[in-house]
Amino acid sequence: MGLTTALTEMFGVTVPIANAPMGGSAGGALAAAVSDGGGLGMIGGGRGDLAWLDREMTLAARSTEKPWGVGFLSWAIDIAVVDWVVERRPAAVMFSFGNPDLFVPRVRAAGIPVLVQVTDLDEAGRALDLGADVVIAQGGEAGGHGGSGWATLPFVPAVVDMAGPTPVLAAGGIADGRGVGAALVLGAAGALIGTRFQASAEALVASEVSKALVDAGGADTERSRVTDILRGARWPSRYPARTVRDEHVERWRGREDELVEDLAAQRAFRAEKRGLPLWAGQSVELITNIRSATELVARLADEAESALIRAYPN
Amino acid sequence: MGLTTALTEMFGVTVPIANAPMGGSAGGALAAAVSDGGGLGMIGGGRGDLAWLDREMTLAARSTEKPWGVGFLSWAIDIAVVDWVVERRPAAVMFSFGNPDLFVPRVRAAGIPVLVQVTDLDEAGRALDLGADVVIAQGGEAGGHGGSGWATLPFVPAVVDMAGPTPVLAAGGIADGRGVGAALVLGAAGALIGTRFQASAEALVASEVSKALVDAGGADTERSRVTDILRGARWPSRYPARTVRDEHVERWRGREDELVEDLAAQRAFRAEKRGLPLWAGQSVELITNIRSATELVARLADEAESALIRAYPN
Repeated sequence: MGLTTALTEMFGVTVPIANAPMGGSAGGALAAAVSDGGGLGMIGGGRGDLAWLDREMTLAARSTEKPWGVGFLSWAIDIAVVDWVVERRPAAVMFSFGNPDLFVPRVRAAGIPVLVQVTDLDEAGRALDLGADVVIAQGGEAGGHGGSGWATLPFVPAVVDMAGPTPVLAAGGIADGRGVGAALVLGAAGALIGTRFQASAEALVASEVSKALVDAGGADTERSRVTDILRGARWPSRYPARTVRDEHVERWRGREDELVEDLAAQRAFRAEKRGLPLWAGQSVELITNIRSATELVARLADEAESALIRAYPN
Repeated sequence: MGLTTALTEMFGVTVPIANAPMGGSAGGALAAAVSDGGGLGMIGGGRGDLAWLDREMTLAARSTEKPWGVGFLSWAIDIAVVDWVVERRPAAVMFSFGNPDLFVPRVRAAGIPVLVQVTDLDEAGRALDLGADVVIAQGGEAGGHGGSGWATLPFVPAVVDMAGPTPVLAAGGIADGRGVGAALVLGAAGALIGTRFQASAEALVASEVSKALVDAGGADTERSRVTDILRGARWPSRYPARTVRDEHVERWRGREDELVEDLAAQRAFRAEKRGLPLWAGQSVELITNIRSATELVARLADEAESALIRAYPN
């Protein structure tokens, strides 16, 4: 038995699952817990805060003997930070959202596998041209930032057909073993999972966030630029973020360009003390509890095997 | 071997695939061809043109001994037409888009299984309360009309969890056997497939449409109300249609309410002689040829089995 794929073979792991390197919340504890469960744990390096990275990478290294990686935002990261991380020899480095041209060759030259997350076929083609070792095809049902065009179910096989021998992971819309199994049948070598691990014991989120994720349904989520504009986050407009819908998204929907010009509205938003947006994908519908990420990985693998056997018992 | 599910058992078919009852293009020839291939062929009864239905149902009955069904638009159909069809004893009747409250009990009382297509969890709950025999969970990546919220990959397991023993079909984003296999792993009893059968030899479409479907990519499609407003189709605004993007969709995107008021623009559109919009889902990316629907069903089933075995060879 077992779910052996090109991903598990590349990294010497036992389960074809990685957690999404969610900036700020996917720290060393979450990455180590995912890796201890048999998956590929990822630290969310985001824009590259070195003090945070140092602390979380140290924690991961002390917490597990298993391989784990670090993810960055291509549009926001500095090559010096990438070099600093590469010197610490994580098992994988991942880039998402924006142009990774500068970074991919640098990491590959160090002999570290590079994962590139893509949201359309143009990005997939560029990632393959750059020599990405793994391409992650993310559909618009994913939580947090992403593209708004493709859905995961048709996007993954389209990227698989383009990628040839390069392994593809499916991202977006997957929160249980049925989704993991479906990803494998679509031709993916595994699944990259965000929201389900955001709702884990090891994610660096407030308890109110965990509770809100358990309570929210998929139809409560919406992809929008509104929150990024209000909080002054300089995300490229092509990557709006899926969050649990709030009054700001309702108020400014369809008037994002107007909001960009409305500095008073932005100042008012920032004057109030707020936490981060409640990032969540449509698969939040399937999440009804908070578990340890180590246990989650084992359950996701078991459920995936059961779902594959049930679908084709012959 | 074989892909036995609650759907194949309910209808005595061999392949857990139905074609979407696409209004106007899914005639008796397509339905019979799908049924001859082992699937459940569906005639697209649309708003209920009796002369068209009479011709196409007669054709289907003469063309195959296998079971086939008829689909209607809930928001547009008259109960008298439903009764007329029920008297002709198709193997299944399907309702999509709008409130099927009046129709489902009428068809069930005649002992004919009812399929209800849904685009969100509220619709799914109502369909189950009505006693639908099969619920079809359609994601927004589907071609033609549909909801714009849910994507198929997270929506199907959410509906499966709600439906209990009632079989669920996956619709939207499926054009090859990988998608069919993934649907089964998600817990669906089969797949309802539109665009792939629109690009078949038996679909009632002009040869230019077939060619355009082979040429189009998934990123060329967009869900929009624009074309329905321009052509004066009285579709409920909650079901915009995914088509290959054209200059009208580009011009009026985000200004749909303005277009509703712009009678001059609508008249100008209608004054030109035009065919129907080029309905297509994101899975059009995966379509590279025109085949007979009978052959397609067999290929989809073979590919699904191969994909399931490849994903889990144990």
